[in-house]
Amino acid sequence: MLTLYHSPGSCALASHIALEEAGAEYRVVKVDLGSGAQRQPDYLAINPKGRVPALATEGGILTETPAILAFIAQRFPESRLAPLDDAFAFAEMQAFNAYLCSTVHVAHAHGRRGSRWANEQSSFDDMKRKVPETMGAAMALVEDDMLRGPWIMGDQYTVADPYFYVVSTWLKADGVDIETLPRIADFKRRMEERPSVKKALRWMAEA
Amino acid sequence: MLTLYHSPGSCALASHIALEEAGAEYRVVKVDLGSGAQRQPDYLAINPKGRVPALATEGGILTETPAILAFIAQRFPESRLAPLDDAFAFAEMQAFNAYLCSTVHVAHAHGRRGSRWANEQSSFDDMKRKVPETMGAAMALVEDDMLRGPWIMGDQYTVADPYFYVVSTWLKADGVDIETLPRIADFKRRMEERPSVKKALRWMAEA
Repeated sequence: MLTLYHSPGSCALASHIALEEAGAEYRVVKVDLGSGAQRQPDYLAINPKGRVPALATEGGILTETPAILAFIAQRFPESRLAPLDDAFAFAEMQAFNAYLCSTVHVAHAHGRRGSRWANEQSSFDDMKRKVPETMGAAMALVEDDMLRGPWIMGDQYTVADPYFYVVSTWLKADGVDIETLPRIADFKRRMEERPSVKKALRWMAEA
Repeated sequence: MLTLYHSPGSCALASHIALEEAGAEYRVVKVDLGSGAQRQPDYLAINPKGRVPALATEGGILTETPAILAFIAQRFPESRLAPLDDAFAFAEMQAFNAYLCSTVHVAHAHGRRGSRWANEQSSFDDMKRKVPETMGAAMALVEDDMLRGPWIMGDQYTVADPYFYVVSTWLKADGVDIETLPRIADFKRRMEERPSVKKALRWMAEA
């Protein structure tokens, strides 16, 4: 049994969708970021970084979305959630996910978590003003160069898809008009038809 | 033949060391970030993100350090640069590399590339002042919770090692005293005894 530590509205949604797509046996534990539960000793014992997601497995605890997603794909190979037999194709998928965690999620976070990287309110305001530009540039790259269609990596649905789906749900708040990005808008609509996504969104709404 | 697009002083050093450790046939092409070569059309055709590293392979071009490193480990399995037969251990290594690209490299970059995330000089100055705190906190986590010793993942040397080695070379400029982190300091010294590291550093010095 796998246990996903998740907080509604967080990027842990990607791992939740992937677990569902994999047909895994799992449970979801809510970490209430609003009350600071991620900084309490019992959660820090699970993830010393004080972030979600974390995935408790038979072998121990995993953190970091790209690593958790690739683990789910490797642990449930019959679900074909990654090109496991092709090192180059697997690396391309991992490169996409690394771009999301190192560039896209970071650009997004500057709109709401500026205190990670600065101390002054004027800096937070400045960072927040730039988010539409940085997220817009990243989304133009995804729209024009990365999203192969119908799924991120092409014909095969992979764990890159739930991860990018999470990003697509941020765009409105980040000042990026998804309707100017027709391929991304179409991707988001198709993701929201999947039972796995509906189920994961329902958990968030009820948690 | 693999081709690594590299710039002296960049995190492409990690991929260079890994290629050397893998016994790969490869060449290194310098991308002169100082003259803006990464934004010229010929390089953007290789990597539309305008960053290094990029690795040209038989199958196409890869970007993003964690993906390139895992690819090198998978492409040269006899070099045993990753726990390829254990999905959990592989994911742990990938989680470490994801932490470096999404949190540690990002914290470091706020000291010198604040214009990625803000527009005002006062914000850049504020970000720069916070780097010793953010990098110090991340390094305390590596020292106390992540670095298993003698290598990052324990007894097996993996591609996480050259990646963290690159980070260890940043600490002085980031205002973090490596001598207060004895396990990291010891790791750095042992890395610098490896022929692969010596060779990669020599390329940087001469490029």
